[in-house]
Amino acid sequence: MWFMRQAGRSLPEYRAARGDGSILDAIRRPELAAELTLQPVRRYGVDAAILFSDIVVPVAAVGFGVEVEQGRGPVVERPFRHRADLARLRPLGPEADTGYVLEAVRLATRELDPLGIPLIGFAGAPFTVASYLVEGGPSRVYARTKALMHGDPALWSQLLDALADMALASLRSQVLAGASAVQLFDSWAGALSPADYERSVLPATSKVFAGLADLGVPRIHFGVGTGELLALMAGAGAEVVGVDWRVPLDEARRRVGPGHALQGNLDPTTCLAPWDVVEAQTRDVLERGGGTGHVFNLGHGVLPETDPDVLARIVELVHETSPAHASTRR
Amino acid sequence: MWFMRQAGRSLPEYRAARGDGSILDAIRRPELAAELTLQPVRRYGVDAAILFSDIVVPVAAVGFGVEVEQGRGPVVERPFRHRADLARLRPLGPEADTGYVLEAVRLATRELDPLGIPLIGFAGAPFTVASYLVEGGPSRVYARTKALMHGDPALWSQLLDALADMALASLRSQVLAGASAVQLFDSWAGALSPADYERSVLPATSKVFAGLADLGVPRIHFGVGTGELLALMAGAGAEVVGVDWRVPLDEARRRVGPGHALQGNLDPTTCLAPWDVVEAQTRDVLERGGGTGHVFNLGHGVLPETDPDVLARIVELVHETSPAHASTRR
Repeated sequence: MWFMRQAGRSLPEYRAARGDGSILDAIRRPELAAELTLQPVRRYGVDAAILFSDIVVPVAAVGFGVEVEQGRGPVVERPFRHRADLARLRPLGPEADTGYVLEAVRLATRELDPLGIPLIGFAGAPFTVASYLVEGGPSRVYARTKALMHGDPALWSQLLDALADMALASLRSQVLAGASAVQLFDSWAGALSPADYERSVLPATSKVFAGLADLGVPRIHFGVGTGELLALMAGAGAEVVGVDWRVPLDEARRRVGPGHALQGNLDPTTCLAPWDVVEAQTRDVLERGGGTGHVFNLGHGVLPETDPDVLARIVELVHETSPAHASTRR
Repeated sequence: MWFMRQAGRSLPEYRAARGDGSILDAIRRPELAAELTLQPVRRYGVDAAILFSDIVVPVAAVGFGVEVEQGRGPVVERPFRHRADLARLRPLGPEADTGYVLEAVRLATRELDPLGIPLIGFAGAPFTVASYLVEGGPSRVYARTKALMHGDPALWSQLLDALADMALASLRSQVLAGASAVQLFDSWAGALSPADYERSVLPATSKVFAGLADLGVPRIHFGVGTGELLALMAGAGAEVVGVDWRVPLDEARRRVGPGHALQGNLDPTTCLAPWDVVEAQTRDVLERGGGTGHVFNLGHGVLPETDPDVLARIVELVHETSPAHASTRR
């Protein structure tokens, strides 16, 4: 078990270490990024660390002109609009462009490896990164993104292919530097109909997972609002399919089919509820998860206003309740 | 067939008639509201008009202190936080509080009735209206709303009950004034897990539909991202269940079960695509809709940047293709 965005503003030690600067600046300081990666492991006793990072790190590193505004998200100075914009997405050289990421991975795994705690590498999936590049910032309807997807499918697929190559290069380099699993964040894929997802997104996402296969690390594929996409996502090649809180895990398992583990799916807002509600919903998630082939997590990231003590109690409850955990620790 | 938000900024005649004032001010002018209701019928030849209104009209009318900001949505001066706030939600007296709504219904139906075109009445569902009152404005995660729902279930259910009574009073009065169908907008219900929806929202929503039963008009129940809620929504009492573009209609029909019509579900962003994409996706919706028991619509409201000519072509295509339409018009 672990929590998406466990390294985040809900932790006082995170706020103290991070201050008010840009998240991209924090990511460019390997000691700080490693420290932020490790904080939740120390605090909560979760079973995995996730690299402190952001989905726009590779595109920012090749100079596309992206910043992440506090409380808003990624914003792009000159959004992707024309074929000529492809030239602004040159291939990522992980060591040269994002050496700080790899240094953070090395620093974090130096502390995690002796504890037997895996580090999960981090990248944004082609569709979700593309949505920021095309919209110029966060969106509710993705009108420009879908207009490009429908209006110029050739350019769209070149864009997604370039972003797939960047995600792949980044994740491979993270694994070679010491990460022992990866998560590909396709947070906003749930905005698409199944037909559009299958035709216009799945090929690029599958390319990322296929390119990681020889490394032999578990691959996690995550998105929000993906109830109708779960079967397609399962076919993209990851071992683990993330599920948000909208789809009960037993139903998700029917859609995903055999041969995959599931990750999820407590509603992050439930962590703001009284403990009896948190406990009941956590137990429900564990029960529907079925005991094996289940990575307990929230259905999306930890909310900044979450009380860390509630997360600590959830970890305790999950560990007590999970037979798999008890057997590995004995 | 009709389009959600067919009376909106995509129409030049709408922008000309409305100007830049507050939508609530426009709704309070019955001649203008009726005109805006009728414009899309004249322009597109859709099979139904929907009353030009907003989901916060009743709460604004009883003085809760709500405004609708252009491009942002409803904002509440003093959000709902405590038990004492219940007193600010006194029962709606439709004639006294929203006489302008009923006058708009009368003016619109005076023109629509001779054409045999039904007017659909309009109200916000308890959960979605509550989300604005509690958050104070639009939200992505509904953290405060769910915190109240989980943290004080008694107060939550009183709040939803009060809003159900207001929606019911408003819809009844619209039908008595001439509307011949109603749609209850629970736009954001899809943020909830099925268990939370069933326990904390469904009772209030069901109360609205039950209270309309004796009027004998078709009732439509709409939300976005409701793939996992469709079976529960179908049990709330409406004849028609709205479906967004994420769930193909043939799959939606399996979840909703027999005895209900479906409404939907072309992705509104598809209307920004080249015509061959619009045509293919429109035909796909019609095919999956199955020819009967299907009200063609978008999966959510028309986007402001939509070209009205595209909507007109969709109407033509749906009418040409639909056997039901051909037989009623002969």
